[in-house]
Amino acid sequence: MRLTKHNNMTTTKPIQSALISVFSKDGLEPIVRKLHELNVTLYSTGGTEEFIKNLGIPVIPVEEVTDYPSILGGRVKTLHPKIFGGILNRQDHATDVEEMQTYNIPQLDLVIVDLYPFEKTVASGASAAEIIEKIDIGGISLIRAAAKNFKDTVIVPSVNEYRLFLDLLETGHGSTTLEQRQFLAARAFHTSSHYDTAIFNYFNQEETIFKMSSDQGQTLRYGENPHQKGFFFGNFEALFTKAHGKELSYNNLLDVDAAVNLILEFKDSAPTFAILKHNNACGLATRASMKEAYLDALAGDPTSAFGGVLIANNTIDTATAAEINQLFCEVVIAPSFEPEALTLLQEKKNRILLVQHPTELPQQQVRTCLNGLLVQDRNAVTDTKNGLTYVTTTKPTEQEVDDLLFASKICKNTKSNTIVLAKNGQLIASGTGQTSRVDALRQAIEKARSFGFDLNGAVMASDAFFPFPDCVEIAHHAGITAVIQPGGSIKDELSIAYCNENNVAMVFTGTRHFKH
Amino acid sequence: MRLTKHNNMTTTKPIQSALISVFSKDGLEPIVRKLHELNVTLYSTGGTEEFIKNLGIPVIPVEEVTDYPSILGGRVKTLHPKIFGGILNRQDHATDVEEMQTYNIPQLDLVIVDLYPFEKTVASGASAAEIIEKIDIGGISLIRAAAKNFKDTVIVPSVNEYRLFLDLLETGHGSTTLEQRQFLAARAFHTSSHYDTAIFNYFNQEETIFKMSSDQGQTLRYGENPHQKGFFFGNFEALFTKAHGKELSYNNLLDVDAAVNLILEFKDSAPTFAILKHNNACGLATRASMKEAYLDALAGDPTSAFGGVLIANNTIDTATAAEINQLFCEVVIAPSFEPEALTLLQEKKNRILLVQHPTELPQQQVRTCLNGLLVQDRNAVTDTKNGLTYVTTTKPTEQEVDDLLFASKICKNTKSNTIVLAKNGQLIASGTGQTSRVDALRQAIEKARSFGFDLNGAVMASDAFFPFPDCVEIAHHAGITAVIQPGGSIKDELSIAYCNENNVAMVFTGTRHFKH
Repeated sequence: MRLTKHNNMTTTKPIQSALISVFSKDGLEPIVRKLHELNVTLYSTGGTEEFIKNLGIPVIPVEEVTDYPSILGGRVKTLHPKIFGGILNRQDHATDVEEMQTYNIPQLDLVIVDLYPFEKTVASGASAAEIIEKIDIGGISLIRAAAKNFKDTVIVPSVNEYRLFLDLLETGHGSTTLEQRQFLAARAFHTSSHYDTAIFNYFNQEETIFKMSSDQGQTLRYGENPHQKGFFFGNFEALFTKAHGKELSYNNLLDVDAAVNLILEFKDSAPTFAILKHNNACGLATRASMKEAYLDALAGDPTSAFGGVLIANNTIDTATAAEINQLFCEVVIAPSFEPEALTLLQEKKNRILLVQHPTELPQQQVRTCLNGLLVQDRNAVTDTKNGLTYVTTTKPTEQEVDDLLFASKICKNTKSNTIVLAKNGQLIASGTGQTSRVDALRQAIEKARSFGFDLNGAVMASDAFFPFPDCVEIAHHAGITAVIQPGGSIKDELSIAYCNENNVAMVFTGTRHFKH
Repeated sequence: MRLTKHNNMTTTKPIQSALISVFSKDGLEPIVRKLHELNVTLYSTGGTEEFIKNLGIPVIPVEEVTDYPSILGGRVKTLHPKIFGGILNRQDHATDVEEMQTYNIPQLDLVIVDLYPFEKTVASGASAAEIIEKIDIGGISLIRAAAKNFKDTVIVPSVNEYRLFLDLLETGHGSTTLEQRQFLAARAFHTSSHYDTAIFNYFNQEETIFKMSSDQGQTLRYGENPHQKGFFFGNFEALFTKAHGKELSYNNLLDVDAAVNLILEFKDSAPTFAILKHNNACGLATRASMKEAYLDALAGDPTSAFGGVLIANNTIDTATAAEINQLFCEVVIAPSFEPEALTLLQEKKNRILLVQHPTELPQQQVRTCLNGLLVQDRNAVTDTKNGLTYVTTTKPTEQEVDDLLFASKICKNTKSNTIVLAKNGQLIASGTGQTSRVDALRQAIEKARSFGFDLNGAVMASDAFFPFPDCVEIAHHAGITAVIQPGGSIKDELSIAYCNENNVAMVFTGTRHFKH
């Protein structure tokens, strides 16, 4: 907040009059009763006026002040100079004070508003006409006017501030400090900008305008590193039920995001288990049972698995949980857990257990870049059998095609440059985040060998095309028999020729999968 | 845009009356003249009214309609039921039409507003009182009311739409279609939400509320991959002057961001040159001349340098440019270029040349995670000599300390897990984006050897602590004599003991540098 502190932030100012015009009456009663008890003169309109009357508390209709009726089916009620004069006048300006008397304008010390529920109406699937009628005009004007004049006026801009305001009323005995009024003014502009952002996003057709507004921020222990502050703005509870464990860290959330995106690729597969570290899969396998899937995922890289994030595409049963319990891991995610499995996994105090709900992820991704943001569609394309072009004389076997598509799904979810090696539904090694594609391949081969894998008959997936035939040559020498890649290099023919000469099958997908 | 299309989006509606109340008169004159030519009745206030009068065009003061003066120093001018009735009435509602007659409310078919310049006033360093006076109340109310009633009313919500509206007036001969009015309504809510987002951000003290609003979007060829749409919302021109080359892609921008952040670490160093691929440095060197720095950066990994992003911390001279011209590279960035160097580098048609201006980058970083956003402070800590703790009996030499800090700066800007190896002001290899720290080290050692580097006397930087002593052991066997790392593992003592037994110097920084 860059607003200069005023000299006397603690000067209190009593509330003697209030205008109340709200949609939600939930929690309003104690405020009205308290204001009445404090001898505050109440002004109101329509339904709110009825509500106050029904409490047996005196209230002056706004129409009595303005001497003007509510017109156009309620579209114009409070938009009158006497009301806005009462809110916007500066009590330390002699001319303002004079005009208030000349035009018989009542001072309004407090404004309580709760807007028509625009977002809820949109979410309810209402008609365009109903939605447009829910665009609040008068309420926003009252909120903004009172907030502008926070030096003299208190604004309660939504039902979310009722509780806070009641506390202020009680502790301040009906008076507020400048600091409190300024805080509420900030909330007022939060309310107005959030409301109009929602309306804009409803109307908008222009992709070159980007807006977001969220007050769902959760303070994390810290950011990517302990010296960086970190926050998560999202609805974690909509995606997961936390069944156990400590608070998720910034890095946990990044890993969970990578894990969820990865396992989505396997949602219709046989039992599949993945282990991730630093946002990349270090192990993944599809098997007849979840326990086998876990054990073969772990076998992919038992070293990296230490402290990893684990995710399953289906129920984690007790047998699997017993195996997982042998490993130190940070997070375990599954759509469900057998009760006994949960009990077993809960034995480790800090381990986070998440029950994943079926949910759609946002269609756009944003990230800071330079002095702004990059915004893009998420990568929604998964390679399928139908999309393959068989470019070599040697065709892949059925098992190889399955493995190629399996490897491609992992490749898409691994940081570029990446090469993924797989065999019989198991990730046997990947090269990740490399500056050169050959390095990614060499790294994968060395890693696979270091964990005792036999590369003969394994397949290779590449996130982008091969600019030279060196990769297929190295792969062939390692024993790899089938390759999947987007194709599209001006030197594709060289890689194809090498494969044809050496009995390697290669398929093109036409789809690059860079991920950074 | 989710708004249901109306049955007859092309029904045109003539403009017969207009309310004009604007801050910026820039481009207003032809609109006023055109409206006059079309026999449109004009209503206006204050300065705008003067402006129209001075054009010799008849205009009715709003006060004549409302029979109410402008009060409170202009804070309340248009907030009157006759004005809002004129804007908000529904021409297909019999009761609205009736009330218009009863209360003698003039129909207002068009509203042109340009708000007080809040953001500019804040940027100018004005006082809090001046800034608050620039919070427009009446203007926003007019804009929102007219936009809500787009079915009947045309809204021109800011100076940015003057040109567009003049075109509409001319092509439509004073009539607008429902589609045009709806488009302008979207712009109206863009204006109001953008304005209040700026006010909110000025007032806000709560870190758990996050907002942004930008209409500076630039459509990119595509996103990270050709099947993904991509946009950049930022002010590229504030950071760079593009001296040559094609449009930057999404991946170019990501690389340029990584390059700029990396070279910032070396802004006070002797001539330093870096080469990046996939957001990671594959070469970097500090030397007596820029040409030497470039050649030794290239030597770090001549394979990865192909198609890379190049950045210098100082002027690129002709000798350096001549060397760069031997390489195929996508982007070259420097604070300045010698004229001849620029001429040389411009020989390659597609190569992008950027002159970097001295600019601050944002203090917060955001990225999509799950169904929301992660927000964190940028990593603003650079390790310095003063922050080092010498934890081993063997102390690093002066050259080693320089190399350790040099390596640490690269490490901080390389994706985790990472190990960086350096010697005499040159990056000799790094392991990047690995799921295990040992893998990162092994990869770096193998890579350094493959390019013929002698690791004896080299130093090692790690972005996070060593959980086990295996890394220092492997490093020592490779010839590495000094190590920099945050420290903080419960097994730090094991790594320290190994170093002490083997004459390796190790320093702790206390600062982790994860980057994903």
